[in-house]
Amino acid sequence: MFVPTAGKDVVCRFVFGVACGCSFGFTSKWESKEIMALIVQKFGGTSVGSPAKIKAVAERVLRNKSQGNQMVVVLSAMSGETNRLVDLASQMQELPDTREMDMLLSTGEQVTVSLFAMAVKEAGDDAVSFLGDQVKIKTDSVHTKARIESIDSEKIRAELNQGRVVVIAGFQGVNEKGDITTLGRGGSDTTAVALAAALKADSCEIYTDVEGVYTTDPNICAKARKIDRISYDEMLELASLGAKVLDIRSVTLAKRYKVPIHVRSTFTETEGTWVIEEDKQMEGLIVSGVTYNKNEARITVSGVPNQPGIAAKIFTPISDENIIVDMIIQNQDAGKGKADMTFTVIRSDYERTLKLLQQLIKKIGAESVQGDTDITKISIVGVGMRNHSGIASTMFSVLAKEGINISMISTSEIKVSCVIEEKYTELAVRALHDAFELDKSNVSIEEQ
Amino acid sequence: MFVPTAGKDVVCRFVFGVACGCSFGFTSKWESKEIMALIVQKFGGTSVGSPAKIKAVAERVLRNKSQGNQMVVVLSAMSGETNRLVDLASQMQELPDTREMDMLLSTGEQVTVSLFAMAVKEAGDDAVSFLGDQVKIKTDSVHTKARIESIDSEKIRAELNQGRVVVIAGFQGVNEKGDITTLGRGGSDTTAVALAAALKADSCEIYTDVEGVYTTDPNICAKARKIDRISYDEMLELASLGAKVLDIRSVTLAKRYKVPIHVRSTFTETEGTWVIEEDKQMEGLIVSGVTYNKNEARITVSGVPNQPGIAAKIFTPISDENIIVDMIIQNQDAGKGKADMTFTVIRSDYERTLKLLQQLIKKIGAESVQGDTDITKISIVGVGMRNHSGIASTMFSVLAKEGINISMISTSEIKVSCVIEEKYTELAVRALHDAFELDKSNVSIEEQ
Repeated sequence: MFVPTAGKDVVCRFVFGVACGCSFGFTSKWESKEIMALIVQKFGGTSVGSPAKIKAVAERVLRNKSQGNQMVVVLSAMSGETNRLVDLASQMQELPDTREMDMLLSTGEQVTVSLFAMAVKEAGDDAVSFLGDQVKIKTDSVHTKARIESIDSEKIRAELNQGRVVVIAGFQGVNEKGDITTLGRGGSDTTAVALAAALKADSCEIYTDVEGVYTTDPNICAKARKIDRISYDEMLELASLGAKVLDIRSVTLAKRYKVPIHVRSTFTETEGTWVIEEDKQMEGLIVSGVTYNKNEARITVSGVPNQPGIAAKIFTPISDENIIVDMIIQNQDAGKGKADMTFTVIRSDYERTLKLLQQLIKKIGAESVQGDTDITKISIVGVGMRNHSGIASTMFSVLAKEGINISMISTSEIKVSCVIEEKYTELAVRALHDAFELDKSNVSIEEQ
Repeated sequence: MFVPTAGKDVVCRFVFGVACGCSFGFTSKWESKEIMALIVQKFGGTSVGSPAKIKAVAERVLRNKSQGNQMVVVLSAMSGETNRLVDLASQMQELPDTREMDMLLSTGEQVTVSLFAMAVKEAGDDAVSFLGDQVKIKTDSVHTKARIESIDSEKIRAELNQGRVVVIAGFQGVNEKGDITTLGRGGSDTTAVALAAALKADSCEIYTDVEGVYTTDPNICAKARKIDRISYDEMLELASLGAKVLDIRSVTLAKRYKVPIHVRSTFTETEGTWVIEEDKQMEGLIVSGVTYNKNEARITVSGVPNQPGIAAKIFTPISDENIIVDMIIQNQDAGKGKADMTFTVIRSDYERTLKLLQQLIKKIGAESVQGDTDITKISIVGVGMRNHSGIASTMFSVLAKEGINISMISTSEIKVSCVIEEKYTELAVRALHDAFELDKSNVSIEEQ
């Protein structure tokens, strides 16, 4: 697997350029049939939402193929189809059986891949469609959110060597019993990355309806800028930005197998965002993006007896209910031998968690439970933080200057997160985006 | 496999009654869990056309299961779904690739079986759905009209023994390459019969929206009567009647493996028509049904040189174009050493055949070609004909009495067919139905 070397400018792009077939003034090289790359391209539901759109995508794929590349295409269900099927299921069973749900939902991608292969053939080229089980995308048996265990790339290679476009149904696999499994929402991204890893593809292009990953949400910050290159770790931390364009599990997988991901738009030829291994140039950039998450709620357990094992006594019952806890802060009041435990959960789990704790506090001798849903977690992310001190305090100053109170703080090697009142979200995003000059490009920041 | 013995009345029904779980006053026996039959039930698209209908079918299946039977259910796509998919395909490719077409169409049944399994589970029982390839319904590779070669019944038996309803996608199989194949329109009937044969099922029930097979088309003859029992051979000859309720390929398969088929209505508990091996009682019935086919056209090649091999010279080019010829009559004019060759083809092949022959006649030295599309082939069918003479002449007399001219005649062991002018179809059907007293039941005819 190839690792991009960072240069002043287009070295990385050039190498990838060969793979993705875009043109940067090196046309003469790319027209040569001798330069051949294996490219995995994934198109989401909106990109294949109608017969006309499927045809347009097929033409795009064939342009890349005509440049001498071998093409593997991963497709999602046509937009609206998965919802239609979920609705049918909900009419049959209150809590649909997950094995049968996978049997049902996997038809969505099956329809798209067969239509796509027809479109390629109509255009005079050749294609063959495969389902998850036909190319042995083996998964565990956790229906509706299965994990890929292995892929047999032999059949795909054989078809590629016959000159065919290989079209693979995203989102689905097969377990050891031969039952169809699905990978959960966004699972087609994971299929694409896993295939790219298995095939040792030159790149994995994830096509979507936006142009890439942005420094922050363009809807609330007009200065938001498309990021050209971002590291796997930053992408993982920018989850709430990335989730809109790229499934986070696919990034984890891409990191492990060093698969370069190119997130880009189906509807333009513009370069998007490369999600790749960290390099020197990235480190020059202190903050890559500002992200926020309005989907959490905060809970505080007050007057907890400060004794060994008390944290486990609180969080084990919560985890037993499959409630995911994000930030945790413990404030110890040394005088009283009591502590306050504050943490955040996903907002839809808030009521359930409160109820659970109200029963629990008597048992563990805590005093009370309070909570708050009107919060936002706001984060700055950047691999450059590792080598720069004072980033967190800059963040705190910026928020203070805007009169925004911080109620919780958590930090990782490449991220600082603060919980603030929800109403300040947009103000905080814009202030931080300005303060860290995210509207300026990577290169200019490096030169500063 | 059990062969029904004909008695005055319910012997056959009783034995099958156990299998199908209907009640004929033997309720005490059927309530016993010890009497266990393996029943394959197939429901067509209109029977599973909506979530509510799928639930109703699931309840029906569970009533049969609660009587101690093991249930295998074969389902078609929800009504309208196959047409929707065909329409999508036609938007992608002018002549859709048949492999990809099978990939596409097979999703229709996949949706139904998963929804059905959910419905069974919601009702508190257990079910598991399988696709063609999951139960190894192996076929040849003739996409869109594949033939079943083998079925591995082991997995199905294992699930049945776990007390589950086994729900199998009709219409589909898998070829030796692992590609999905489909069996053609009506293929779910074939799936059901093939499964019944492989599982050595006690019966195969084909559910449809009519109550069974009728002595003739009830839409044009008010006296049409539901046939209680009919032989495989008669059913094959009654193709045009049977095609509406039962795929003819499934009858051929049922005959070969002696699978008793029970054609009946999804919407009532009434007994339908048993399609079974011929027995003595059936032979007592001279004519079982009157059928007509308006879908043929007649072509006459006049002045054909009467020399050896001339028939082959006419029909080989026709067959090379995949045009199916039904009736053939050759009239020889001994004086001139010339002959007229008259035959029928499917109406949609008429123009193509005419054009072909107009080019051919010069080559073979024939004089002219004429044709006519306003014809109907009307037939009487009955295994009893084997032992009765004069049936054909009765038919000719009945038609003559109504002033209907016969232009072609062909006979088989158990069928007489006449080509008449199309406008006389209804008149001819009613006259023949009356003349052979088809409104009277089997038994009364036998006693005459």
